[in-house]
Amino acid sequence: MILTVTLNTALDITYRVPGLRPHASHRVTEVTERPGGKGLNVARVLAALGHEVTVTGFAGGATGRALQDQLTHTPGVVDALVPVTGSTRRTIAVVDTATGDTTQLNEPGPSIAPTEWSAFQEAYEDLLRSSSAVALCGSLPPGVPVGAYAQLIRAARASAVPVLLDTSGEPLRRGVAARPDMVKPNADELAELTGAHEPSQATRDARRRGAHAVVASLGAEGLLARTPEGDWRATPPRRVHGNPTGAGDSAVAGLLSGLVEHLPWPDRLARAVALSAATVLAPVAGEFDRPAYEELVGRVSVTGVAAAA
Amino acid sequence: MILTVTLNTALDITYRVPGLRPHASHRVTEVTERPGGKGLNVARVLAALGHEVTVTGFAGGATGRALQDQLTHTPGVVDALVPVTGSTRRTIAVVDTATGDTTQLNEPGPSIAPTEWSAFQEAYEDLLRSSSAVALCGSLPPGVPVGAYAQLIRAARASAVPVLLDTSGEPLRRGVAARPDMVKPNADELAELTGAHEPSQATRDARRRGAHAVVASLGAEGLLARTPEGDWRATPPRRVHGNPTGAGDSAVAGLLSGLVEHLPWPDRLARAVALSAATVLAPVAGEFDRPAYEELVGRVSVTGVAAAA
Repeated sequence: MILTVTLNTALDITYRVPGLRPHASHRVTEVTERPGGKGLNVARVLAALGHEVTVTGFAGGATGRALQDQLTHTPGVVDALVPVTGSTRRTIAVVDTATGDTTQLNEPGPSIAPTEWSAFQEAYEDLLRSSSAVALCGSLPPGVPVGAYAQLIRAARASAVPVLLDTSGEPLRRGVAARPDMVKPNADELAELTGAHEPSQATRDARRRGAHAVVASLGAEGLLARTPEGDWRATPPRRVHGNPTGAGDSAVAGLLSGLVEHLPWPDRLARAVALSAATVLAPVAGEFDRPAYEELVGRVSVTGVAAAA
Repeated sequence: MILTVTLNTALDITYRVPGLRPHASHRVTEVTERPGGKGLNVARVLAALGHEVTVTGFAGGATGRALQDQLTHTPGVVDALVPVTGSTRRTIAVVDTATGDTTQLNEPGPSIAPTEWSAFQEAYEDLLRSSSAVALCGSLPPGVPVGAYAQLIRAARASAVPVLLDTSGEPLRRGVAARPDMVKPNADELAELTGAHEPSQATRDARRRGAHAVVASLGAEGLLARTPEGDWRATPPRRVHGNPTGAGDSAVAGLLSGLVEHLPWPDRLARAVALSAATVLAPVAGEFDRPAYEELVGRVSVTGVAAAA
């Protein structure tokens, strides 16, 4: 199975409100909820692609229970979240139905105790034994050491399990130094990591810092990949309009599924770009539009770039 | 014991946010949660005054479980909420720490099935047998008939249990016609019920419509009571500043505790006014400041008013 790690899971709640006015009282007309956090989004897409997926990370309190209840209704995803005393965070997206704009309120998440972090590491090492690949996704909750991803990458490499890292800031910097098989930063995360604002140079720099392969997501322009097997640019056949929430997570699912299926890099990249675009096109944030994916995947342009370009 | 009924219970969540800007993303710096809905607030104050209280109404889904978990940590309050399939609503108060202003987001609440409403009525009639008084509080959730409070008042009267009604709109209008022992409208609710904007006339009119006693809450001016034993105005000794959330619920708790303790009306009114002011003064919305209450209760001015005044 494929393992995804979400240390800062969330219950993602969406409220629809006809006109949001600060300091007024609003009747919410529609409430939707789903398990959230980047690794859970990646898992949902992997399951939709037909892969067996296990999710781990932390869950606690009433919100953690609500999240785990909902996971039982997500076909193909096995729940291996580790219990904690604190309460899993909620994120609330308030969609103004008059303008379509979204206001986001994000709870901080539970503080993880040292014993809880140790319990997680043990559970993770057990899960690695039956994993074909692992994705480490998202921010770290309070209490987890900033070098957490570096530790988890070393454990995966010791078990010979390919590991993909998708995070930002200092956890990314330390994680890259632990030599993950792949990182998938966006342009901002890459610039923060390397100090270089030009993706071509920044991706090369990120490889020098330790990542075996670097796949940068460049929004509507697709992906730029620097790998031991070669360097490519993958571009969607047309510009798509919609909600970009979850597009990066779908790209991770595309890369990871391509890796375990031993696809050549250009096919992995085409899949990641098509999934990403099909996620922007889906009416519900974070889902992907399957007919759009199937139409797009054969039409993504993947071109080799010179290693020094 | 005293019974409080909250058909539309809620989990009241407060977020503190440094500056709320529509269409931006916000990190919530502090999250607090407590069981909400008017009858639950009344129960908490009654318990703090040393009364045995049982709460009933509906609870369902993950939010209902979270609410019931928190009730187990509320000393003196017994949980007799009736399970429903739908999910209990959340209310979110977003407090802007820069300005102190609050933006409110209220979920609609679960739809109650006819069988759930019947199950509630049976449970309620059982609970009435051991009740010394009952308070019916707040709005009706979808699916509950608009004449619900009238039915519950008739059942209480059939069991010879004194009944207080605190609601608004059509449920208030129908409830008053069922002859409750007491109603506690605010000035707006009273004007909507009677069409009279002058409290003196409106309270007399509300009695004519069926309520044995009418206690109108007039904000900072205190209470105006029309009862079979006489008519009074009760005024706090000074104007208090703070958060008025829950002040009306504290007044209900004061009136109801005075009733079961067989206090004379002027003492009930003094208690209700002092509790209400002490709630405005408390740092946490819906709590009351006990030293302030004890200081204020002896200093409330209660004066008789002529029945025709």
